[in-house]
Amino acid sequence: MSVLVVGSMAYDSVETPFAKVDDALGGSATFFAAAASYFAPVNLVAVVGDDFNFADIDFFKNKPVDLDGLKTEPGKTFRWAGKYLNNMNDRETLDTQLNVFEKFNPVLPQKYRNSEYVFLANINPDLQYNVVQQVHKPKFVAMDTMNFWINDYLPDLKRTLKVVDALVINDSEVKLLSGNSNIFKGAKLIQEMGPKTLIIKKGEHGAILIHNNAYFNCPAIPVEDLFDPTGAGDTFAGGFMGYLAMTDKVNLDTLKRAMVMGTVMASFLVEDFSVNRIKDLSKAEIQARAKVLLTLMQVQEDGDWIKI
Amino acid sequence: MSVLVVGSMAYDSVETPFAKVDDALGGSATFFAAAASYFAPVNLVAVVGDDFNFADIDFFKNKPVDLDGLKTEPGKTFRWAGKYLNNMNDRETLDTQLNVFEKFNPVLPQKYRNSEYVFLANINPDLQYNVVQQVHKPKFVAMDTMNFWINDYLPDLKRTLKVVDALVINDSEVKLLSGNSNIFKGAKLIQEMGPKTLIIKKGEHGAILIHNNAYFNCPAIPVEDLFDPTGAGDTFAGGFMGYLAMTDKVNLDTLKRAMVMGTVMASFLVEDFSVNRIKDLSKAEIQARAKVLLTLMQVQEDGDWIKI
Repeated sequence: MSVLVVGSMAYDSVETPFAKVDDALGGSATFFAAAASYFAPVNLVAVVGDDFNFADIDFFKNKPVDLDGLKTEPGKTFRWAGKYLNNMNDRETLDTQLNVFEKFNPVLPQKYRNSEYVFLANINPDLQYNVVQQVHKPKFVAMDTMNFWINDYLPDLKRTLKVVDALVINDSEVKLLSGNSNIFKGAKLIQEMGPKTLIIKKGEHGAILIHNNAYFNCPAIPVEDLFDPTGAGDTFAGGFMGYLAMTDKVNLDTLKRAMVMGTVMASFLVEDFSVNRIKDLSKAEIQARAKVLLTLMQVQEDGDWIKI
Repeated sequence: MSVLVVGSMAYDSVETPFAKVDDALGGSATFFAAAASYFAPVNLVAVVGDDFNFADIDFFKNKPVDLDGLKTEPGKTFRWAGKYLNNMNDRETLDTQLNVFEKFNPVLPQKYRNSEYVFLANINPDLQYNVVQQVHKPKFVAMDTMNFWINDYLPDLKRTLKVVDALVINDSEVKLLSGNSNIFKGAKLIQEMGPKTLIIKKGEHGAILIHNNAYFNCPAIPVEDLFDPTGAGDTFAGGFMGYLAMTDKVNLDTLKRAMVMGTVMASFLVEDFSVNRIKDLSKAEIQARAKVLLTLMQVQEDGDWIKI
């Protein structure tokens, strides 16, 4: 099954305590597609300016990524500049130039409208809503959001929440959106707003899946030398949605495994700037790291060890 | 095998956003023994004042807890008063009266000196060191500590670290003790100080086991109504050490399971004040909750699901 992603394509300038890069390829749709395409075909919807260098996305040519939904508009490509501080624990945005992204109004190519797995990256909730209306029979729709939309566009956001299956969100946003500082109580309140599946990202503490009444905790892979976390959330989402589309089953077991694959893809991403590390992975590398992650979380069961 | 614990017995006055209790039974040795005694016999070393009401520890009578190492000294029992704020995320100490605990100088009864599993609760590292010297052939010695000892008693602490197998510590203390803000790099630096096994507590984010080069992540059980976290760390340690002593095997598998049992016991503890919730659990309750915890962390394996 194919995955549709609607989001941004951008140039990022990133400064970390260790290194610096200017105008590196970024954007939510880019990271998502790079990760998801190891698992399933991706239909990408985004917009770039006429300054965009298409050689930067040459690596998509060898991957099942359909770029017919990538539009070029007169003007400059979305640019973001940021700086990581305090051992990557804090991020400061230095500059945001929306450019052509400001008027982004995603219209899906006809052939994308049969997509069954849909990821609405972090854009205006009103646009996210319109995208869902354009898809004929989606099986599983997941969305991202951020504090900006929660604070200033809440009615729009709530309308979109009603039409999605899953929300990808970080722990502080759970508190902000629900108004409850207990993450599990907050999650229940958000489930009442629509999505029955929540993926709560906690950075170095991993991520929590809440699916109906069930919980699952997926640890992060220990990273001693975090290089650049930009795009980790979208890369996680790409591994997650790509895996679901590959199996074409959505249940607690496949969702757990999808969490594992999301975590694995994000763990590669942070090892280099931009999409450099996830451009050209082998399936064997991905599988090997998934096995490492499982050793971090699995308790060996030899019959009834719980007997005390 | 029996577990030796050397620590405090105290009266705690605790205020939470929901309730308040005065002079409730507390102390590291108390919480530890209450939890560990579900798994293995416990030898307890602590000191109380002549004001101590022994009826408060009547519940130990039905448990394999040897109290010959509990001394009564003239004066008052150790008292602590604290207040939890901001949905239990912060704790403020209102009052600490060491009383008889100030001159605590643990001397092990002869019969305790053959203990094979030893837990040195959070006391002066010099006393912890002296305790280890009194045990003939310990198989596994674990210690707790805190920022106060790291900041002001570092040489003593480093001497003790050299003679223990495991350190139970929280994530901020890892950074303080190692001087490194990356938890995994910090952990390696601490391993070089002595203990090859670290149990890093992260509160609502669970706990990490580091054993030689292996990692294991144990999530916390989702708690919607945290009642009183006082003693959760010592209760965790009690479940952890008790389980190891019960199996009498120390390897990566048993350490992982011990993490599960520690987490389970702590999850009960926080449901009420003092030791109230863990005084009288059934083994079935403990087993059932361990199974719940496993569902939060285990990915169902049906053959080669990792194939992509």
